[in-house]
Amino acid sequence: MQNGLPTFADVEAAARRIAPHAVRTPLVESPVLGARTGGRVFLKLETLQRTGSFKFRGACNAVARLSPAQLRAGVVAFSSGNHAQGVAAAAALFGARALIVMPKDVPEAKLEGTRAYSAEIVFYDRRTDDREAIAARLCAERGATLIKPFDQADVIAGQGTVGLEIAQDAARFGVRLDTVLVPCSGGGLASGVALGLNGGAVVHTVEPVNFDGMKRSLEAGRRVAAPGGALSIADALMAPAPGELVFEIARDRLGPGFTVDDDALRRAVAFAATGLKLVVEPGGAAALAALLVGAVPKQAVAIVLSGANA
Amino acid sequence: MQNGLPTFADVEAAARRIAPHAVRTPLVESPVLGARTGGRVFLKLETLQRTGSFKFRGACNAVARLSPAQLRAGVVAFSSGNHAQGVAAAAALFGARALIVMPKDVPEAKLEGTRAYSAEIVFYDRRTDDREAIAARLCAERGATLIKPFDQADVIAGQGTVGLEIAQDAARFGVRLDTVLVPCSGGGLASGVALGLNGGAVVHTVEPVNFDGMKRSLEAGRRVAAPGGALSIADALMAPAPGELVFEIARDRLGPGFTVDDDALRRAVAFAATGLKLVVEPGGAAALAALLVGAVPKQAVAIVLSGANA
Repeated sequence: MQNGLPTFADVEAAARRIAPHAVRTPLVESPVLGARTGGRVFLKLETLQRTGSFKFRGACNAVARLSPAQLRAGVVAFSSGNHAQGVAAAAALFGARALIVMPKDVPEAKLEGTRAYSAEIVFYDRRTDDREAIAARLCAERGATLIKPFDQADVIAGQGTVGLEIAQDAARFGVRLDTVLVPCSGGGLASGVALGLNGGAVVHTVEPVNFDGMKRSLEAGRRVAAPGGALSIADALMAPAPGELVFEIARDRLGPGFTVDDDALRRAVAFAATGLKLVVEPGGAAALAALLVGAVPKQAVAIVLSGANA
Repeated sequence: MQNGLPTFADVEAAARRIAPHAVRTPLVESPVLGARTGGRVFLKLETLQRTGSFKFRGACNAVARLSPAQLRAGVVAFSSGNHAQGVAAAAALFGARALIVMPKDVPEAKLEGTRAYSAEIVFYDRRTDDREAIAARLCAERGATLIKPFDQADVIAGQGTVGLEIAQDAARFGVRLDTVLVPCSGGGLASGVALGLNGGAVVHTVEPVNFDGMKRSLEAGRRVAAPGGALSIADALMAPAPGELVFEIARDRLGPGFTVDDDALRRAVAFAATGLKLVVEPGGAAALAALLVGAVPKQAVAIVLSGANA
């Protein structure tokens, strides 16, 4: 840690910490996408991660660092779904209780997935309630530990193991990556991946149109909120702005951001199923959507398929 | 080659030959399946292979060994679909024409997949026509080379690279596999995998009920045909009996065979999509189906998901 920010060494430590629990997801070349782009395209299959998304990594790294007393008091998380499942699964592996604050309109698959890990659920309305305040109150009442969805150093370091593994596997393939495309909501994954790649490739975020807080913040040089508006089909990518710690990392390390609309996301989900034989949720397909619309004419690209709980 | 049969050295040679063209598909651990079986379960994702099935490997190995004159005269294959796509794709990569003899009731996805590689298609009726005779006539007319779907040494050696990679990746994970489950039609994949594993685990075939020629042949100690009957939803697994070369290998190297019914196959396809986030066709899910019905209570199992062209 430097000035409260996670470093490459923290990502390496996270990798050791989560190794007994997380899936070492594959980086696999896609000849179909390579033929479309005229270069080489590699897929990082976080859809195959425990709980069906990368979120397990950050949650596991955070839970693994808790003391026995903290584990006994339990953990709290607020989440639109994938982080909830990640925290619930990590807590269950370490014998801790998990209390999850979820929006009422959470997709059924994510709700069931969370309940399957024996988590307790508290619902809120994403238009009227302050989920962070609800979570803070629950932590105070129970002495539990909050695990934030992105703006927390050990969560970012955990997500960074995705970047570390991409770098390791690209080296094993003898490939020098130009670009890594990462779906982005609050930016924990993207900033973590940039840390974990350690300069090995330029990381670009992909966000839904009107929920592009990271893109706008990178352009402005300071954290600004996206306009929002009609809900995107990418329910996992609707954070209004990047986190504070996240943006400290992102500002120095990310390339310009991209946006994709719902049509592009829908086509990417369909293409994943028919062309790539992979189930991917709309938010998890954002990087693929950007590649398919031709945003990135580079020679060697890796795209992170970040979640599959549609 | 020994007595016309491929050896482990032939599998290693095939691996070198196809490396520039085939996807090095991942072996990935499934915590979800591990929790169900109480052991460790690894998935070999041939669904991510070029053309969506393992068949590309054998076809590529066979085509790569042809002389320039043979490549100019083209190749012929008969296939219910996945071998067709494998041969068509391999021929296209080596600049050879491919002529494919396919059943009239071939699934649309497999037909389109084959046409996408610029192959020429000749249809036959699987109840009345002799596809082998049709293919032989076409080869004679054009001087083209037949690439059989399973009973050919270089095809078996190519499929065997699946086993070689499973062994390599299991070693990388530090895992000693007990069992490898393989979907089986004519047995080219299963016998190849047993060669490629080189004694590293016991290989069991999984066939549809009533299309279990390999299981019956292994029990009888000689090649016998399955009874057949109502078509299985596993259209890729309907060979009546194992091939001759195949059985010479299988007899000495395979464990007892398993069968699964259409209900088990349907449930496996659905479980692959919802629980594993993978698109798998019914035949390609046969090994998964056997695992899900509890056929294999072993500590460390790898299952081959062999095709995804549903």
